[in-house]
Amino acid sequence: DIHLCKYTIAPNSNYYRLWRSLLIILVICSAWMAPFELAFIRYLPRMFFLIDTIVDLIFLIDIVVTFFIPYMDKRKFILVDSISDIAIRYISTWFIFDIASSIPYQLFAFLITKRVGRGFAYNLLSMFRLWRLRRVSNMFSRLEKDIRVNYFRIRCLKLMGFALLSIHIMGCIWYLLAERYHNPKQTWIGVHLQDFKQESIGKRYVYAMFWSMITTASLGYGSLPAVNPVERLYTILCMFYKSGLAAYLIGNMADLAVDITRRTHKFRISVEAVSRFAIQNHLPSSLRDQMMNYMSLKFKTESLQQEEIMSMLPRAMRTSICQHLFSPTLKKAYLFRGTSNDFILQLIAEIRAEYFQPGEDIILHHEAPTEFYIVVSGKVELLIYKDAEEQHHGLAREGDVIGEIGALCCMPQPVIARSKSVSQVLRINRSCFLNVIRGNTADGQIVIYNLFEHL
Amino acid sequence: DIHLCKYTIAPNSNYYRLWRSLLIILVICSAWMAPFELAFIRYLPRMFFLIDTIVDLIFLIDIVVTFFIPYMDKRKFILVDSISDIAIRYISTWFIFDIASSIPYQLFAFLITKRVGRGFAYNLLSMFRLWRLRRVSNMFSRLEKDIRVNYFRIRCLKLMGFALLSIHIMGCIWYLLAERYHNPKQTWIGVHLQDFKQESIGKRYVYAMFWSMITTASLGYGSLPAVNPVERLYTILCMFYKSGLAAYLIGNMADLAVDITRRTHKFRISVEAVSRFAIQNHLPSSLRDQMMNYMSLKFKTESLQQEEIMSMLPRAMRTSICQHLFSPTLKKAYLFRGTSNDFILQLIAEIRAEYFQPGEDIILHHEAPTEFYIVVSGKVELLIYKDAEEQHHGLAREGDVIGEIGALCCMPQPVIARSKSVSQVLRINRSCFLNVIRGNTADGQIVIYNLFEHL
Amino acid sequence: DIHLCKYTIAPNSNYYRLWRSLLIILVICSAWMAPFELAFIRYLPRMFFLIDTIVDLIFLIDIVVTFFIPYMDKRKFILVDSISDIAIRYISTWFIFDIASSIPYQLFAFLITKRVGRGFAYNLLSMFRLWRLRRVSNMFSRLEKDIRVNYFRIRCLKLMGFALLSIHIMGCIWYLLAERYHNPKQTWIGVHLQDFKQESIGKRYVYAMFWSMITTASLGYGSLPAVNPVERLYTILCMFYKSGLAAYLIGNMADLAVDITRRTHKFRISVEAVSRFAIQNHLPSSLRDQMMNYMSLKFKTESLQQEEIMSMLPRAMRTSICQHLFSPTLKKAYLFRGTSNDFILQLIAEIRAEYFQPGEDIILHHEAPTEFYIVVSGKVELLIYKDAEEQHHGLAREGDVIGEIGALCCMPQPVIARSKSVSQVLRINRSCFLNVIRGNTADGQIVIYNLFEHL
Amino acid sequence: DIHLCKYTIAPNSNYYRLWRSLLIILVICSAWMAPFELAFIRYLPRMFFLIDTIVDLIFLIDIVVTFFIPYMDKRKFILVDSISDIAIRYISTWFIFDIASSIPYQLFAFLITKRVGRGFAYNLLSMFRLWRLRRVSNMFSRLEKDIRVNYFRIRCLKLMGFALLSIHIMGCIWYLLAERYHNPKQTWIGVHLQDFKQESIGKRYVYAMFWSMITTASLGYGSLPAVNPVERLYTILCMFYKSGLAAYLIGNMADLAVDITRRTHKFRISVEAVSRFAIQNHLPSSLRDQMMNYMSLKFKTESLQQEEIMSMLPRAMRTSICQHLFSPTLKKAYLFRGTSNDFILQLIAEIRAEYFQPGEDIILHHEAPTEFYIVVSGKVELLIYKDAEEQHHGLAREGDVIGEIGALCCMPQPVIARSKSVSQVLRINRSCFLNVIRGNTADGQIVIYNLFEHL
Repeated sequence: DIHLCKYTIAPNSNYYRLWRSLLIILVICSAWMAPFELAFIRYLPRMFFLIDTIVDLIFLIDIVVTFFIPYMDKRKFILVDSISDIAIRYISTWFIFDIASSIPYQLFAFLITKRVGRGFAYNLLSMFRLWRLRRVSNMFSRLEKDIRVNYFRIRCLKLMGFALLSIHIMGCIWYLLAERYHNPKQTWIGVHLQDFKQESIGKRYVYAMFWSMITTASLGYGSLPAVNPVERLYTILCMFYKSGLAAYLIGNMADLAVDITRRTHKFRISVEAVSRFAIQNHLPSSLRDQMMNYMSLKFKTESLQQEEIMSMLPRAMRTSICQHLFSPTLKKAYLFRGTSNDFILQLIAEIRAEYFQPGEDIILHHEAPTEFYIVVSGKVELLIYKDAEEQHHGLAREGDVIGEIGALCCMPQPVIARSKSVSQVLRINRSCFLNVIRGNTADGQIVIYNLFEHL
Repeated sequence: DIHLCKYTIAPNSNYYRLWRSLLIILVICSAWMAPFELAFIRYLPRMFFLIDTIVDLIFLIDIVVTFFIPYMDKRKFILVDSISDIAIRYISTWFIFDIASSIPYQLFAFLITKRVGRGFAYNLLSMFRLWRLRRVSNMFSRLEKDIRVNYFRIRCLKLMGFALLSIHIMGCIWYLLAERYHNPKQTWIGVHLQDFKQESIGKRYVYAMFWSMITTASLGYGSLPAVNPVERLYTILCMFYKSGLAAYLIGNMADLAVDITRRTHKFRISVEAVSRFAIQNHLPSSLRDQMMNYMSLKFKTESLQQEEIMSMLPRAMRTSICQHLFSPTLKKAYLFRGTSNDFILQLIAEIRAEYFQPGEDIILHHEAPTEFYIVVSGKVELLIYKDAEEQHHGLAREGDVIGEIGALCCMPQPVIARSKSVSQVLRINRSCFLNVIRGNTADGQIVIYNLFEHL
Repeated sequence: DIHLCKYTIAPNSNYYRLWRSLLIILVICSAWMAPFELAFIRYLPRMFFLIDTIVDLIFLIDIVVTFFIPYMDKRKFILVDSISDIAIRYISTWFIFDIASSIPYQLFAFLITKRVGRGFAYNLLSMFRLWRLRRVSNMFSRLEKDIRVNYFRIRCLKLMGFALLSIHIMGCIWYLLAERYHNPKQTWIGVHLQDFKQESIGKRYVYAMFWSMITTASLGYGSLPAVNPVERLYTILCMFYKSGLAAYLIGNMADLAVDITRRTHKFRISVEAVSRFAIQNHLPSSLRDQMMNYMSLKFKTESLQQEEIMSMLPRAMRTSICQHLFSPTLKKAYLFRGTSNDFILQLIAEIRAEYFQPGEDIILHHEAPTEFYIVVSGKVELLIYKDAEEQHHGLAREGDVIGEIGALCCMPQPVIARSKSVSQVLRINRSCFLNVIRGNTADGQIVIYNLFEHL
Repeated sequence: DIHLCKYTIAPNSNYYRLWRSLLIILVICSAWMAPFELAFIRYLPRMFFLIDTIVDLIFLIDIVVTFFIPYMDKRKFILVDSISDIAIRYISTWFIFDIASSIPYQLFAFLITKRVGRGFAYNLLSMFRLWRLRRVSNMFSRLEKDIRVNYFRIRCLKLMGFALLSIHIMGCIWYLLAERYHNPKQTWIGVHLQDFKQESIGKRYVYAMFWSMITTASLGYGSLPAVNPVERLYTILCMFYKSGLAAYLIGNMADLAVDITRRTHKFRISVEAVSRFAIQNHLPSSLRDQMMNYMSLKFKTESLQQEEIMSMLPRAMRTSICQHLFSPTLKKAYLFRGTSNDFILQLIAEIRAEYFQPGEDIILHHEAPTEFYIVVSGKVELLIYKDAEEQHHGLAREGDVIGEIGALCCMPQPVIARSKSVSQVLRINRSCFLNVIRGNTADGQIVIYNLFEHL
């Protein structure tokens, strides 16, 4: 429905989504590559540089594309599609960083030195590529709010990815320290492998990752300890970082555990309270079982509880939902046969839906007639109290009205109603009902006619 | 009460429960056996294969049984007992996995190779048996919701079992790496025990578990470090897994700690607020003590607080409980002697129960008479204010009515009422009471007659 | 006030409290001694046995004493002082355990073997003394509910004590393993100290504790590793235990951290919401500052907020507090000079106290007169709006009435009232006030007379 | 506005803030220096002593200054500016500690021994300087309550600072143990570096910090283990401390994680409930989308939700805010043209603001006319239901009134109103509106005149 300026690209269009997904993949690749190249660049084949340069170009293209993507004004919640506004906002925020992270520094290094992988400064500049991870971070915060995705899994994936990247970077720098140290034999790896620079890249990388993992998982320095002062300082830094990382991971897990068990906790607290109450007050066991069954059903059918959810929605939406859910049942009820549509609509606003579980009483013997009920689903048994014993009187099913005689004729309920299966009923308050009738006298007469005919 | 199709087996019947418990035990055994056999199968006696095959057969039988077990429809909360429906649901969900985990692969291996414990691929396939752990997981989620079981213990047991199984599997695979490495002397165990394949199974298993435990408990690599590249890679994986496991365990412990101390926290917060309030407002110490005692009692008698629990239950249930709890007391009260049953029932709906603790005032001197009380349990002292001093006037016990003269004759309460022990009283609001009387004039006259006679 | 059976000892009497404190100290000593003796008993001087036997006797005396201590019935909240009831309850619960933990087993061992420190079985039986720790555990759960004690410190102390005891026991058993191993040179300590049995007890204990601490703090096995299979198995057990312990400690710390920062969190959430609201709605900065000051004051004066605390207390207590706090101020107000005590009492029930902070408006210009106020403390400036400018009109202090002319004469408030310092005022609703007057016409006339005289 | 005694210094004055900031920097420096000097004092240049003495003097000056700084009375929330009161309070609380931590002990040592860095006792006394950290702790608790500062960052900074200082002190003492041990070759550092006392201070410090960090990060004792009994005891203490520290850090991280994700959790819980509800009740997908959009908008515009925030503020402030926000819109509405200012003010108290999102219904077809609306921002489409189809009828913008004909003429709403963009509307309840009109009949006539003219 929203009409955007024709030069801009809709941020929800499929093309743009595809483009964004492609970029996410490239970001993850280049985040892994950047520190790896920093450590092992001298030994890498030319292929890598070609790919790097292409990826850099793709990100440069994305910078241009960004100038045509409308953004959401956080204050007014409007999509801004004026190209000048987009440009001002972009240039004043992330533009510089995006440019800095997209320049193919290694290409320049190659053009200057005419040799591949030379120019340590250029390689360091390439680490700017890690800035691109901002996109991945954005993606995760989008996914966390998306209810189609399992929250626990997406949070775990994020934490795992973050931990893995940290370990990877830590390991690459650890190797770099050995690579660039003046005396290769006085390094952590030189002590084990004399000519480590002749070993395969894979082997060296595994060594570095092994150290990095041992440090992060706090498994200690029996193997691969720091040998020279530089390494010792770096190890201190890494240990400080890993402590923070561990605390962060565990803190987040604790948060997730709380989140996952919240419902069960709540359930147990309320059920235990009810059970303790029943025991301490010596309630008869039949009543106690009814109470426990009710609590258990309440927990299971939480998704069916309309009251709470309805209260979160605005009035107009609420009315639409009630109309959709209850008007077929109301129209089916004999009491409202022939009444006007408006009458039904007004009545719906006064209705509350409730669930009863097998064996639960809906209407008690001789209780005051303040409400009557219409069955939506399930079966309700009707009983009469005769000679101090309950006797079967009938069965109410979908669309049947219960307790209307007591409520409308103002006398104690003559019939007991007890749910036989999980059943949903609509509760109509007597005084609210009379109020609605007062405003629609014609319909009121129809209702009374229906009632007398039924009797 | 529920009638099921006669070919199906009631999921709550004792036979089926026994069968399920038997299977749980077998599942735990086979979950422990599967990785153990994978690692040490060449050295195991023939007995193991026999047992394995029998267990597999039992699980095959259970697959057949499952076709006759009704299931709960999660949307309608109805037990579905149609055999075709059960079959469709089962086949479309877990059937394939259950079959895959019940095939006796080792039997096939034996039939083909004619030798015991050969065929590494078959042994790997046997790991499918771990799928059966789904049953244990289901059992735990059932137990977590069962209030007869201590929540803290069941959660701890679950976490412990999970950790133990992880450590067991990790250790078995660690041994397997050494067993299958081309150069036995270049393995973690070969470095310590030259001819480890000649050692007893127990010794080798303890070595493997020792490494596994050291890694999981992050106690480091002083002993039994990785020696060859394969082991190094596996160690990296294990460390990553153990970090996640540790975070998961700690996170769950934190959740449990919060859960356990919740009540004490709440208690302290409210008591501290009351105490600070009393100190800052210079309330007299007698009043302060009363306040503190009240808060403390409120915490202890939380299980007796009816209001909150009642509010969670449906109306019909509420009425039944009140009837059970209060009608004997009401009938015993002199004021209601001779009134009709219906009158008592209607009155009960308007009653609130309250606890008072020793020394707490129920009725103040000359307060406005909006309520009167009936004692359910405990002793209440009645006092008169004479010559600016409180004088003993009487003692109210179970069934006695307090403050009714003030409330019904519309004059300031002439008598002070103060609880002498922990006592429960029913509070009846004056205007609610008058409303009920208006609807039952005959009973009203009896009440007035009773009152005048009492005076 | 409570009269107990004369043969029983009041559980709150000073003598019994002293006795209980003495026992707590002895419990801690014997909990430390029991495992220490188990490990080093052969080398201990005779003095130890004497002390042990005396302590055991003291605990036997306490068993006798317990038969005379009334207990609290958890269901009825009554102190039971019948000696037969106490005896039945005690014998059916902890009696057996208390006896088992108080028998001087070592004395028997000495009488039988005639030598000190022999009889390993007897020493093992002495470990029953750890059962006495139940008393310490009870003491901690008492202290946790005692608001005079800092919750964070008592919880930390408990966790620390628990950790220390675990480490101590773990270390003692670790030494015991070496002591009783058939080949002393093939033990963890024998590898370091050839003739360790000749070393001083202190040195050996420090070695054992060092290992125990290293294991618990997961610092790894560079020093003092397990040497023989028994030690290896014990190490596995210890590591499993320490993982659980660590998770337990951290989980509890997380719980405490949440508890401590709860108030600050709540404060920040509400202040940030208010601030964001003010910025997004472009409210003028003077109004914004007023809002922020108000929120900040609300947080600081939380202990002065009566509303919430009052709502937790029962009605009679509430009235007493209000009477104590507000009746002096009400009697000082010119409006109520000469009115009856009953009138003041009834009025108090309708009063609400509020705090205003410097610069905050109490009455706005020309607002509808639904309430009037009495100043309890602080200063309130009165202003008149003249020629579109606010002009100073007067100053209200303790006991002064504000806005009564508007409220009682039913006209828009002619005067603006603004707080000059942190001030507390009583708010009296106009319609509630008129209701009270209707019931006390004589007092009403006095109030009107006072008002007119004031004008 | 607050007038303080002229001899005192306003605690919020810029000079004093600058002074306080200067002191904070000096505190951090001296907290780092104190343990460093304790360990390495013999090898430090004279410069250090000069600086130390100057810093001590500055803190002595601050003690004098403190006598002139008014303090906040925590009970009355008044700034106390009487110099005698300030002096009494200061001397009875921190004065002694502040003096003890500001005495230049090393100066005395120098005067007595005439040599630099001698006198171990004096150096120990210098550790009193750590008391100054109280200021840093105060600063952090101030910053935690300051909403301009990011809470997560300030908490992390505090935890990091605390951890770093702990590690620093631990390392310095570790070196001190080696320095003062009788046999330098039997120390942890002497084993590695024979003549460690001849090494550079930097190298020795890095060694000590390396050990300290390894211990704290639980990376174990492969390198630099304890060698003599003193070191072993100290290691046990350090390990105990580091376990507590780790638990504290992780506990706080867990707390922060809970705090940060709270909003997302809440959002997911409510959105999932709504989604489940819609699916289980088979609501049409258009309605379902409307519901989801509404929930999502509600989360995003949380900062715009006035209801909740308003309810936290006092009445006078509430009225000022509403006046500021809504009176321009109300005055612009045709219905209130020409009405008095007082009428508008009274009306504002009855108004509620609501947000609607694109496509959401504000007024349904033929619904009961209990409210009417005024558009504050955004666009609202008006539709008429003709021939069972919705037809465009008009567009309401800022200041337009919707539904007033239905509400004021008491007939079912003839027009459907549906939001076209995110729009804010004011809801005016019909009966509240009529109440206000009843009190201002002149304005009521103007409103009716406006309405008829509009028709």
